[in-house]
Amino acid sequence: MRRGKLIGLGVGPGDPELLTVKAVRALEQAQAIAFIAAAGRTSRAREIAGRYVRPGTRELIAVMPMTQDQDATGRAYSQLVTGIISELGQGNDVVFLCEGDPLLYGSFAHLMPRLGNRFECEVIPGITSISAAAAAAQVPLGIHEEPIALVPATIHPRKLAGILQQCDRVVVMKVGRHLDKIKEALAAARMSENAILVENATLQGQRVRPLSVVTEQQVPYFSLIIAGRKRPHE
Amino acid sequence: MRRGKLIGLGVGPGDPELLTVKAVRALEQAQAIAFIAAAGRTSRAREIAGRYVRPGTRELIAVMPMTQDQDATGRAYSQLVTGIISELGQGNDVVFLCEGDPLLYGSFAHLMPRLGNRFECEVIPGITSISAAAAAAQVPLGIHEEPIALVPATIHPRKLAGILQQCDRVVVMKVGRHLDKIKEALAAARMSENAILVENATLQGQRVRPLSVVTEQQVPYFSLIIAGRKRPHE
Repeated sequence: MRRGKLIGLGVGPGDPELLTVKAVRALEQAQAIAFIAAAGRTSRAREIAGRYVRPGTRELIAVMPMTQDQDATGRAYSQLVTGIISELGQGNDVVFLCEGDPLLYGSFAHLMPRLGNRFECEVIPGITSISAAAAAAQVPLGIHEEPIALVPATIHPRKLAGILQQCDRVVVMKVGRHLDKIKEALAAARMSENAILVENATLQGQRVRPLSVVTEQQVPYFSLIIAGRKRPHE
Repeated sequence: MRRGKLIGLGVGPGDPELLTVKAVRALEQAQAIAFIAAAGRTSRAREIAGRYVRPGTRELIAVMPMTQDQDATGRAYSQLVTGIISELGQGNDVVFLCEGDPLLYGSFAHLMPRLGNRFECEVIPGITSISAAAAAAQVPLGIHEEPIALVPATIHPRKLAGILQQCDRVVVMKVGRHLDKIKEALAAARMSENAILVENATLQGQRVRPLSVVTEQQVPYFSLIIAGRKRPHE
């Protein structure tokens, strides 16, 4: 009997029109979809995929507790894996929904090693929040030979300082409550002047501002800062 | 009279199914498309967009000379800009086709400042070759708090060495004839062991190999290396 295929599918940053043609087709053909949701909240990935999911598609959900209880989180996750294995074993393809791109800071990276050796696996790349933020701000991420550092905002300040010494371009992701720390690091590296804050790219509430005018202490979780040293001709 | 809108559109890494729904719609509605082609060659971006371009859409092409003649290149480019301005002035939307994402090492970054102040502008993000290569190799680009450096292979070896000291993950783009230099830098930084070479991601001739088995002196221009230090649980 044919076994099913596990498909890690990137739904992009938020706008449902930013799914790829390939992703839409995979959703239309899937017997089951799987995703993670925080307790009491809807899944963003599921919302983004909304219009493309066929009625009758089975939905496997890992509901993650809001506490830091590692055991409860582990149980929810194991239950999801069991459900996925059952579908795959019966020959059904399962699409695992990921915000943005499945392999850029996504949970699919943790799922793949647990299933990838036993089942056929495919990854359908998605539009990253990085590309979406640059598009919203209409600023180049990198040109010519410029290296770019992608940095989650949770990074240690000393580590960030070292990176900013070496890379003239940086994108800081999921700024949220780390705003002050990031601002300090950029200022110390003389990279504040051109820095741009993009909140909720492609979503309702999208907002683009120079970092220099941002006075609040914290910003939405889905915020990015795009920064860099002045280019020769700027 | 309404003036046209300039749209920078990412066609993704090669597979036409990796255009977004939004990109397909923009192509179907565009009065004109514009793109750059090397003399005597077809444009890759135009080929990728192929099936989505309506018959009758006007095509503005900058044919770039194969020589390093800066004047001839400048003339071809200026001619394209003039053509685009003419269309926009007549109220026609112009879609500028970009491989991958328009703002990640793309030529749209150079076009935008010349036109963006005078005409309405929109950027439709595209799937990057980075996401496509990771999907082909089925390896995570980054997890948790890991910073990732994106580095064009033309980078100076000393600069690359500095970056590899600070970033545990790196993606080197457009490896081509720079393979030896990159291999040496990765070896010096003890990042060779897990490195993966992805050639022609999503295209005919796609190939994924551990870098350690690659013996040739050079690889296709559209090759990426994904490398990193061993993670704690690997």
